[in-house]
Order: sequence, then structure tokens, then C-alpha cells
Amino acid sequence: MHIGLTINTMLDTLFNPRSIAIVGASRDTEKVGNIILRNVKNTFSGKIYVVNNKADTVEGLKSYKSLTDIGESIDLMVITVPRDAVPSVMEEGGKLGIKSAIIITSGFKEVDEHGSELQDKVSAICNSYQIRYLGPNTLGMITPTFNATFALTDVKMGNVAVVAQSGGIGVYMLDWARKTRIGLSYFVSLGNEADINETDVFEFLSTDASTKAIFSYIEGIADGNRFLSIVPDIIGRKPIIFLKGGIGIKGAQAVKTHTASVAGSVDIFRAAIRTVGGIFVDTLEDLLNIAKIITSDEGIKKDLLIVTNSGGHGVLTTDEIERRSLNLISLPDTVVPELKKLLPSQSKPANPLDLSGDADRMRYKSALTAIQGLDCTKLVIVEALPMSSCVEIAKTLIGFKGKGIVGVMMGLDEDAALRILESANMPAFQFPEDAVKAIKYFTDQVKPTKKIRVKQPVLEAEELISGKSYLRDFEAFKLLEIYGIRLPKWGIATSPEEAIKVAEQVGYPLVMKVSLDSPVHKTEMGGVLLGLQKGDINGAYSELSKKSSRVLLQKQINGAEIFLGGLKDPVFGPAVVTGVGGIYVEVLKSISYGLCPVSEDEAAFMLLHSKAQQLLSARGKSYNIDSAITTITRLSRLIIDLDIKEMDINPLIVNEDEALAIDPRIVL
Amino acid sequence: MHIGLTINTMLDTLFNPRSIAIVGASRDTEKVGNIILRNVKNTFSGKIYVVNNKADTVEGLKSYKSLTDIGESIDLMVITVPRDAVPSVMEEGGKLGIKSAIIITSGFKEVDEHGSELQDKVSAICNSYQIRYLGPNTLGMITPTFNATFALTDVKMGNVAVVAQSGGIGVYMLDWARKTRIGLSYFVSLGNEADINETDVFEFLSTDASTKAIFSYIEGIADGNRFLSIVPDIIGRKPIIFLKGGIGIKGAQAVKTHTASVAGSVDIFRAAIRTVGGIFVDTLEDLLNIAKIITSDEGIKKDLLIVTNSGGHGVLTTDEIERRSLNLISLPDTVVPELKKLLPSQSKPANPLDLSGDADRMRYKSALTAIQGLDCTKLVIVEALPMSSCVEIAKTLIGFKGKGIVGVMMGLDEDAALRILESANMPAFQFPEDAVKAIKYFTDQVKPTKKIRVKQPVLEAEELISGKSYLRDFEAFKLLEIYGIRLPKWGIATSPEEAIKVAEQVGYPLVMKVSLDSPVHKTEMGGVLLGLQKGDINGAYSELSKKSSRVLLQKQINGAEIFLGGLKDPVFGPAVVTGVGGIYVEVLKSISYGLCPVSEDEAAFMLLHSKAQQLLSARGKSYNIDSAITTITRLSRLIIDLDIKEMDINPLIVNEDEALAIDPRIVL
Repeated sequence: MHIGLTINTMLDTLFNPRSIAIVGASRDTEKVGNIILRNVKNTFSGKIYVVNNKADTVEGLKSYKSLTDIGESIDLMVITVPRDAVPSVMEEGGKLGIKSAIIITSGFKEVDEHGSELQDKVSAICNSYQIRYLGPNTLGMITPTFNATFALTDVKMGNVAVVAQSGGIGVYMLDWARKTRIGLSYFVSLGNEADINETDVFEFLSTDASTKAIFSYIEGIADGNRFLSIVPDIIGRKPIIFLKGGIGIKGAQAVKTHTASVAGSVDIFRAAIRTVGGIFVDTLEDLLNIAKIITSDEGIKKDLLIVTNSGGHGVLTTDEIERRSLNLISLPDTVVPELKKLLPSQSKPANPLDLSGDADRMRYKSALTAIQGLDCTKLVIVEALPMSSCVEIAKTLIGFKGKGIVGVMMGLDEDAALRILESANMPAFQFPEDAVKAIKYFTDQVKPTKKIRVKQPVLEAEELISGKSYLRDFEAFKLLEIYGIRLPKWGIATSPEEAIKVAEQVGYPLVMKVSLDSPVHKTEMGGVLLGLQKGDINGAYSELSKKSSRVLLQKQINGAEIFLGGLKDPVFGPAVVTGVGGIYVEVLKSISYGLCPVSEDEAAFMLLHSKAQQLLSARGKSYNIDSAITTITRLSRLIIDLDIKEMDINPLIVNEDEALAIDPRIVL
Repeated sequence: MHIGLTINTMLDTLFNPRSIAIVGASRDTEKVGNIILRNVKNTFSGKIYVVNNKADTVEGLKSYKSLTDIGESIDLMVITVPRDAVPSVMEEGGKLGIKSAIIITSGFKEVDEHGSELQDKVSAICNSYQIRYLGPNTLGMITPTFNATFALTDVKMGNVAVVAQSGGIGVYMLDWARKTRIGLSYFVSLGNEADINETDVFEFLSTDASTKAIFSYIEGIADGNRFLSIVPDIIGRKPIIFLKGGIGIKGAQAVKTHTASVAGSVDIFRAAIRTVGGIFVDTLEDLLNIAKIITSDEGIKKDLLIVTNSGGHGVLTTDEIERRSLNLISLPDTVVPELKKLLPSQSKPANPLDLSGDADRMRYKSALTAIQGLDCTKLVIVEALPMSSCVEIAKTLIGFKGKGIVGVMMGLDEDAALRILESANMPAFQFPEDAVKAIKYFTDQVKPTKKIRVKQPVLEAEELISGKSYLRDFEAFKLLEIYGIRLPKWGIATSPEEAIKVAEQVGYPLVMKVSLDSPVHKTEMGGVLLGLQKGDINGAYSELSKKSSRVLLQKQINGAEIFLGGLKDPVFGPAVVTGVGGIYVEVLKSISYGLCPVSEDEAAFMLLHSKAQQLLSARGKSYNIDSAITTITRLSRLIIDLDIKEMDINPLIVNEDEALAIDPRIVL
């Protein structure tokens, strides 16, 4: 970031140039340098300069031998010269006072050491001349005023912005927009993000009036802190949908060979997207499906009413609604008599509302008229049957635009029917399952949250950890207590008499453990004795004192075991994780992440999402879930304040009264 | 089933009639009775009779007032008269000696009480005349020699049979076959299955030479035992794919309002399909996708090599392969040098094999030539780019037919490219995720298994349970021991002296529990004492003897807790279930079913699939998984032999040495 100017001023000549120079324009119509020039010529009404050191004219325009030959400054240069020539071109541009560039050329950090050096060289030059640039290794950019890409698709202008960290996915989304008649406001292929990154582009688009929604393909976030601080405000104004490439070990490897970005853990990425209020999708198909909902104005709800002419389709759709935890409404009494009238004599109105195989467009119309006022999503499924033409019923559906309609067109004339609904900007699907999944993604969005991460450690806590790389058991206990995280009653003893005194204070049954100055596995060294009663204390002390002069006594308690952890993600910073505890953490990986600081709402979501909450309410028990929530929020505060690298509490035991931390491990 | 004749002889006049009567043929071209007649006329070369009690001719054919008027027997009658007229028509047909019928008419068991009575009446008539019939409430049937449906689609004949328990889904699949140029051998809409059911049709199709694969939409299985005994042999000859409608509570309700079938638990259905070697899919889209693999001859493997011209697509596909637990191969050294030659200078051959954005059809061809001999599935992804036309590369792919190719065509000219591959009968997808999912379904098939369920109870066990509705704790223990299921050492005591004697045999620490003659919750009544040592026995006995004159002593042991249960499914009979044990069974529902008798292989799959196995190998422990497997197989034998209605062992404790059952509960 260049300090002192807002991003929009900085990027103004990039997104709204008055003049463009194509450096490396080619006469060969199959070359990138030619296709880009033609695309610019066909779209841009400002001044166009062509630089080609061999030709006199390219595509009918006068060609300059070099940028310097132009002799005056230009708003934007588009670079397609071979990689080794890029630094000197940037230098020339800088001297002319050019402030923006798109570096199409590839072969930089994404391929080899030499490319990496070249990219650093370009960075240094651009820094010194304050040039902001897209790329290198980008497909280019399309704006409402110009197309500087080498894609062959023609694009209809509209309200959706596409931002992609992969050229191939970018081109695919251009074609998809064309095919589904979705209009684009901006298309930005990010390339290597040597300068301008995804968040910069989101920030620019946030103030662009023509952009209503942003669809992105992201393999990594350049600056997690900046992302978390800026994106919530953007999403407050317009939705951003994220398709993440590189979800796991193998996926992340593929990312590495593909771009120079580093992929963080996909689970934390997912938590970050949820925090900023974005929509996270798993596949390209999901991205295209959610787009149908986002770009319509149907006011889609979690509550659904299925209208169909095929019982089987109703069954399959009901199955999917159950799998996705959406809600099928009960038909209110107000509409039942009217619906009863229009159904075949033996049928009863229900949800799914089966209009029966002989339903024609008039029966669909009557049913929709009856239910249009209901506050729910109407999932209207049409199977092409002798009496039910998808096309006819699609035409009927258009009359109910804005009433929460989602159409599913199946069979003989589905393609034409889908086109009718798409042209009316209404969501239309080929499969009910896709529709349900898209509705789920859309209705799962939450309000964007900003994470304010100011370190304000409690003085006592700061003193406790100061200068230490390892906390002894009783120090870790004290640290948790300072942050209001409760533990079972405990005490330290260094003599048999003291042990008995502490035992009386702690209560029975209790646990006695060796207390050492170095990290060891206490159980493996036989340093833990469980279930001790009053009479056992003397013997237990004498046994453990052979291994350690100091012992720790702690009340033994029962309850549900939750896992609680904290970590510092390399991209998104401090985070907490919770889940089903004990050995099950590793086996079931039933966990959920949250970015620090975690609010009570977020902690409750984490417990629910990781199924830890189900554990707390299983078998009719009313365990104190609120205490677990509070413990998570306090842990998240501790992690920020003390800059904890890694810690866990396994288990946090939750019972009817409280949540108590057992066995904290802290890496400072 | 009519005893003494094989199904194929029985159904011969239905599937291969020499004459057909349309009873209820209509002159109104929009009526079902007219559309069917026209479909039959257009397809059937045998004798056609028309019955219409008002007209003299219908569609140019002489019309009889009634079946009786025809005066001679006919092979097949197709009934479209109103529901109340159906019984008398069947009676007439029976008297003429007609042995087969398709009852198109609806309004029977699926709608109301009167319809249900009518259906029973039809059944009785058909039984007495030995008429076999499809329906009622069916869309009809298409065979290689006639089309007796009221669907408007024209169908290309081929090798795929479609069998559907929903008319709407049936029509959809007809349209799908037309659209994707898949040829059909038979199409059977099952309707209410008052006589002929899904298994009958599978059985007929199993011996039909023209049918290579069967695609079915099933909401319920009519006779689980027959299904389990017949279908494994059928699937040994040709694959059956099952799409199940009604997966859960709400789904099952929707099934009830749709047909008269009863939906069993979807988890047991899934286990049954796995047992018989079928492919179980979740959605209609999955069914259509797996069809692309099944109908090709590409020899698809779990091991994959991705070939692409877009890095982003490679990343997303790698993600999906990881999510689905398929395997990306490492490129063997034999092909690396050749691939290196054809890639751009800086690129290294890897998997995904990124041919780079400027790859043309020649580069795809060279790459495919280099890898065609590898024993893996080649997932070839083409993103339409200036240099890469999907259509051109699809034409190239056809040259590699049979080399394990799956094509994914994306972007500008994807539709035309998909058609090219489909016409060559090669699997082709619009999204890589769909391709990966279909490959997963296909490669997850297992060898069909027949379940032989002969009750051969051990005499001692039979005597033990004889006349009892409830087993006391020590009786349940003995029963398990008879079947070779081990328990921690145990004994019963009725005096303090005996308690001490038993304790010495059992060993310490031990558990002492009240032992009563009625089912009670021992823990809740304070009837369980844990962790008892030698000195505790006297006191413990005197405490428990206040509640019960008999106590049970048992060695207390540690290990991983597995859940093990047995039940009798109303459709598929005896089954076992295993999963992560203790309270986690209910919270996590991480369970897996198997039909009895369960083999060692199946038990191992159940442990893996339910994640119980991960629990047994977590944290580097080598628990005795083989003992858990043996216990499951023995339990499955016990359930068959003794006809157990419901039982569970929670937990089965597994440690380094053995698997020991704790707390069995048995409902006789």
C-alpha cells in the first residue's frame, strides 16, 4: 500500500484510463499481443498507442519503436513483451510518468528462479516510479470502457464483477457469463499479484456503482489482516462469493506449482469468509449456481414450499432439503381450501404440493396465485409431461417475479424454459438438488464482523509469561485464571503435611500429579494418580515424591469433554478451535474454527458446527453450554493479548454447573 | 410369486406379446387412452385390438364395445378405463384367458380408502385367473417391440434399461436418454406394484441379452429377502444403479403420500445395495453422471492422471479427488522425458499435467500418446482458450477411445464438444467435480454377496433364552460367551464371603453391580461401584446388598470404546451396526450397517466406514482390530440364530490384546 492516497485515486488510471499503450503489439493475429490490441481497439474510445520495435503499423495504427519514442505520458501501459524485456519497458514507462500497467507476460515467480528475480526487479522499478500494476502472468482486465484481455469471448456489460487468481478459471467464467446472459461490470485476472492483490480489487469494486456482486476464484489471500479489516465493509454493501482452490494437502501442492501464492488452511479460510460475511463455495458448479440466486431479486428464504407435478421429484427434493438442514413449511390453513379446489379430487394439499401429472399451466398459475403471499421460497419444479410444457409454465412463472420463486425445469423442453427464466432474471435450475444447495449457501450468510485486535494484556499475565519459553503447570493454571477461565480446585504441595492440607481444601476424589520444571508427558512417566480419597493422600505423595519434589493436587470432576485450542494462522492471525474432545479430536476431526476475538454468537456457532454442542445436550442432559461459550471467548482474548503461538485445553470438562479447563498446554 | 414357473415364462406374454388390446382407447388426442394407442400403433407389429364402448373406430382401427366382444384370447391388455371399471375389465379378460395386463389407470392405494379396496379387488381377480400385471398407476412400458406408455418422447433403442417407481422420474429419464443419445432396451414404470415389483423386473432383465445395465429409481423394496437372494446373481451379470427416494423422516413422509410403499431406513438400504454389489447414488444428477461411465467401455480406475490446459482447473480437480479419497498417480519415469519435450520450456511434468494455456490439439495428442499406456484413468480437462478449441480436442480424444479416458469440456464450445464425445460413447462431463464423483461411485462397487441365513442356534443358547422375554445380566453374559464374544472376567456372589472369593478370581480393580431379575437402570439407582480394590469388597458388598441379594463382579478394563448393535429391519431382516462408542454413538451418529451374516471383510469395512477403526489406531496405539472384527461376525451369527429383535453392546472395549463386551442389552 502506498500511504496517504486512497486506493481508488491510486488505481484510477488503471481502471479509468484516458489513453492506453500496447507494448509488444503484434501483427500475427494468433499472438496474444495482437488479440489484446484488437480487443482494446474494439472497445476503448480513448487514445491508443502501439509499440512494436519492428513494424511501422499494427492493425492499421502507427507503431512506435519504443515507449520513449511516444514522448508523452500515457495513463495505462499493457505489456506483452518477452519476460526479459519487461524491466526495461517499466523503466521507460516510469521515466515518461506512466502510473499504471497491466503485465500480461508470464514466466515470472510462477515458473523458476530467474523469473522470480525478474519479478523482484520489476517490483523495485515500479516502487521507485510509483507505478501500480496488475500481474505479471495475467489474462488482463475488462472494464465498462475497455477490454484489455486476450480472451476471445464477447461480454455483455452488467452488474457482476469477476475476480480470478487463475487465468483458466477466469476465461471459463467469461464464457459462463455469456452463456447464461449474465452481464459483467468488471473482469480482473489477478495473475501473480506482485503489486495489486485481490483485496485491492475488492476495495475498488466496493465503490463502483455498476457492480452489485463480486464472484471470485481465490487460491490464497495476500494479506490476511488487511482482508479482515476491509472486506466486512465491502460485503456490507455488496456480496462476495469465494471459490477456494487448494483445500488440502494435495490441493495445496497443486496451488504451489500453479502460482506463487501460499495456501493457508482451508478451515481457517472458511472461518475467515464467514467472519467477513462472504459466501464460501466448494466447487465451480456451486459458484455458478449461487450466482443464479445472487443476481436475481427473489428474496430467497430458508423456509421452502415445493410445488411440483411429479411426486418422485417432490420426494428427491424433500430429501435434499433435509440433508441441507433447510425447512419445509407447513401449509397455512388460509391457503388449503383454495388449493384443495384446484387439485384432482382425491389429492390433499401438502408440502411438497403435488399438482399431479396432469397439471397444466393454468393449474400452476392458480396454485401460485394462492401461495404467492406466503413468506417463503417457492421452489417450483416442472417435469415436462404431455399436459405440462416447461416452456409454457416458465412463461407463467415470469408473472410471479419477485414473489420468492426458484424454478426447476426438467425434461423435454428444459433448455428453452431455462432461457425464458434467465432472461427474466429469475433463478432457474436443471436439478432440484442444485437449487436447494444454492438456497442453502445463500441463506447461510451472516452479518459481516470486523475483528478489532488490540493487545491489552492484563499486567499480571504479562509478568507471568515475561521471559519464559515454557510455562510450568501451576503457571499455566494461574494464566487461565487471570483470564477468567475456571479450573477444578487445585493446589501445590512440597511435603506430605502440605499435601493433606491442600487435599482438604480441594476435596475428594482428587488427582495427584508430579509438577516439574520441564515439559514431560506425566502419564507416561507414571506421574499421575487418579481417584484418590482421603486415606490415599499420604501413600500417593510418597510415591510421586520419588519423581518430583513438587506435586499438584486437583479435584477430579466429571462431565462432557470438549476440545479447545488456540493458534496463530500465518495468513489470518490468531484463531481458536473447538470440537468434540479427548481422543475423539484426532479421530473424528469434528472441529470448528473462529477468528479472534470470538464473540459469544460465534462461539455458539462453533460449538454447534463442530457437534460439541450436541455432546453437551445428549441423553437429555442440560450441561452448561453458556459457560463453554464464555470460556471460548475468554481464551480468544488471551490469545490476542499474549500473542500465543499455539495452545490447547483438552479436555474442557462441561457439566451442569460450569466449564472447567483440564490439562492446558501453552507454547509461548 | 406363482410357484412352479420361472419368472421369465410367467412374464413372457407381458414383455413379448403377439397381440395387444387397448381397453379404454380414446378418440380425444389429448387423452391418455389415445396417446397410448398411437404409441402402440407406431411401434408394435403384432395384432392390435381397440376397446371403446362408444366409438366404432379409434385412430382408424375397428373398436370393440368390450373385451368379451373380441371373442378370442389376447396376450396383453393395456387398461386405461376409469378406476371403478377396472375390476370388471379384469374379470372379462380373465374369462377370455388373457394372462398379462398393464393397468395405467390411477386412483388406487396411492390416494384413498376406496382406491385401496379397488386395488385389493383387482388383486383377487388376477390371482384367481393367474393374470400377471404391471401397475396400477403406471406410466406404462417400452420394450424393443412396443411402446405402451403415454410419454411423448421418442426413444432410441439400445442397451440401458430404466425401471422407476415414479412416473415423473420415469418420464424425466426417457427425456434424458433422448438428450444424451443413450439407447434404451426397456423402460418400466412400476406404479403401485400390486403384482409385479422391482425385483421381478430386474430378474426378467437379467436374462435379456439387449440389456447391459439397469438404472432404477426406488422408494421401497417390496420383499427384502427375495431382493437379497436374487439381485446378487443379476448384478454379477450386469450393473444396477439405485437412486433412492425418501432418505429420512421428511423424505419418507413424502414417499407415503406419493405411493403406497413403505420406505425402510436409508442406511440399511445403502448397506443392502452394497451387499448385492449395486451402486447407490444420492441424487438424480449423480445417476445421470454415473450413467456416462457405465455406458462407456473406458475401464475406469481409482487411480487418476489429470491432463489440463488450466492450472486453476487442475487445482479444483485435485481438491475434489482428495475430498472423494481417490488417488492421483505419480508420473512414472518412463513418460517424464517425453512429456518434458512437449511442454513449454520452464514447465515440469507433474500430476495434474498442466499443458499450459497455449496448448493446442497437437500438444494434447502428443501428451495422450505418451500416457495412453499407463494403467490409470486419464481425466482430460479442456478449457476453451484462444489456442484450445474444445471441439478440436474432443475430436482428438476419440482417437484414444478405450484408453481410460474421461473428458471434461468447459467454456465456449463445450456443448458441441460434449456431443462429439457422447456420440463416440465416451464419458464426457461439463464439470470436473461431476466426473470425479461419478468415477468414485463406479470404483466403489464391490463384488455381490449372497446372504445365506440359516438358523442353527447352539443348543445351549436356545435353552438359555427359551420362554424368556428378558435376560438377566448373567444370562446375557453367558449367551455372548456361547457365541464366542468375550467379556471381562466376571462372577456372581450372594454373600460377602462369596464376593471376596469371586473378586480374587476376577482381579482388581473391579466393578460391582446389583444383579436384579427385572430390567432397571443400575447406575441411576446407585447400583454400580467402580474402581474397587481388594480392601473395598466387603464395604461395597454390604452397600449393594441393601438393594439386591445378588451382586455381579467384573474386572474393570481400559481401551477404546466401540458401539455394537443388532436389529431386525422390517425390509432387509437381521443387521448389525457398529460405530464410535459410548455417548458418542448418539451425538456423532458415526455408524455403519451390515446385513447378517456379516463376513470379516464386511466387518472391517463397517469399522473403517464408521470411523471406529480410526479410534482403534489413534495416537499410535495398536489396538486389536481383528478381535473387534471377529466379535462383529459372531454377533451377526447370534442375531440370525436366535432371531433377536434388538440388542446392543455399548461399549465393546478394544485394547492391545482383545475386544471385550460390556453392558449387553438384549430384546428377545
